Amino acid sequence: MRQKLHLEDLHVGQKFTTATKLVSEDSIKQFAALYDPQPFHLDDDAAKATLFGGLAASGWHTAAMTMHLNVSSGPPLAGGIVGGGGEIHWPTPTRPGDILRVEGEIMEITRSRSKPNRGMIVMRMETKNQNDEVRQIIVMKLVVPRTPTAAV
Amino acid sequence: MRQKLHLEDLHVGQKFTTATKLVSEDSIKQFAALYDPQPFHLDDDAAKATLFGGLAASGWHTAAMTMHLNVSSGPPLAGGIVGGGGEIHWPTPTRPGDILRVEGEIMEITRSRSKPNRGMIVMRMETKNQNDEVRQIIVMKLVVPRTPTAAV
Repeated sequence: MRQKLHLEDLHVGQKFTTATKLVSEDSIKQFAALYDPQPFHLDDDAAKATLFGGLAASGWHTAAMTMHLNVSSGPPLAGGIVGGGGEIHWPTPTRPGDILRVEGEIMEITRSRSKPNRGMIVMRMETKNQNDEVRQIIVMKLVVPRTPTAAV
Repeated sequence: MRQKLHLEDLHVGQKFTTATKLVSEDSIKQFAALYDPQPFHLDDDAAKATLFGGLAASGWHTAAMTMHLNVSSGPPLAGGIVGGGGEIHWPTPTRPGDILRVEGEIMEITRSRSKPNRGMIVMRMETKNQNDEVRQIIVMKLVVPRTPTAAV
């Protein structure tokens, strides 16, 4: 088990890189069938006639896979990866055969004024494939506990 | 089949409300197991000791269910619901037993300068439960085709 990181263990500019995940055509279609059943996420032939020009993962699937990579091999934050929200962009769609990884960097660290036992960080996370094509950028606020001894 | 809407059919202030979806405890755990395997999304007892105080859906699950409601009963946009990104916030977590719906409003409409056959809209979408508790707010940019005859 990796050592858990509290707010005091983090610094602005700190970087993290996750393990990788191969995106299969089946997984794209399975996610789409449950959550985003549109032709360009379900069927390669139907997708060719659309803006996407071929089967593309739902942006929400890319977001969900990014979360999985972060939870399993991203920053081992004490308290887990707990986000209140942020900005999300999909510069290009995830494709079958993509091998995704997430590269994160801490942009801001703020102690909570009202809750002495925690703080907030802003992380910028790029989800890239094996050719360094950027599939998703998220700038997300995450809650991070302070070390128990640091709390007032 | 509902009539498809092109850019010319839309106006700022136009509102949409989707059908509803009941969120089961099983569906929360199933999504979490695949995409966000953290204790507060997987197990009610483990969740009680966390920030969430009980089983809570992954924010990405709320986002995925919101997408499904939009695709199946939201604005019937010609070309589908195709987003390039936006802002997402989770003011409160989705809970087992929530009956979710999405209320959307068009905030901006812009014609593309480079692509005469399409434009962009900004939609604000609130995902609420049966007690009008807001589980998610998204402000998202969506690509919308112009009517074929309107294109240059």
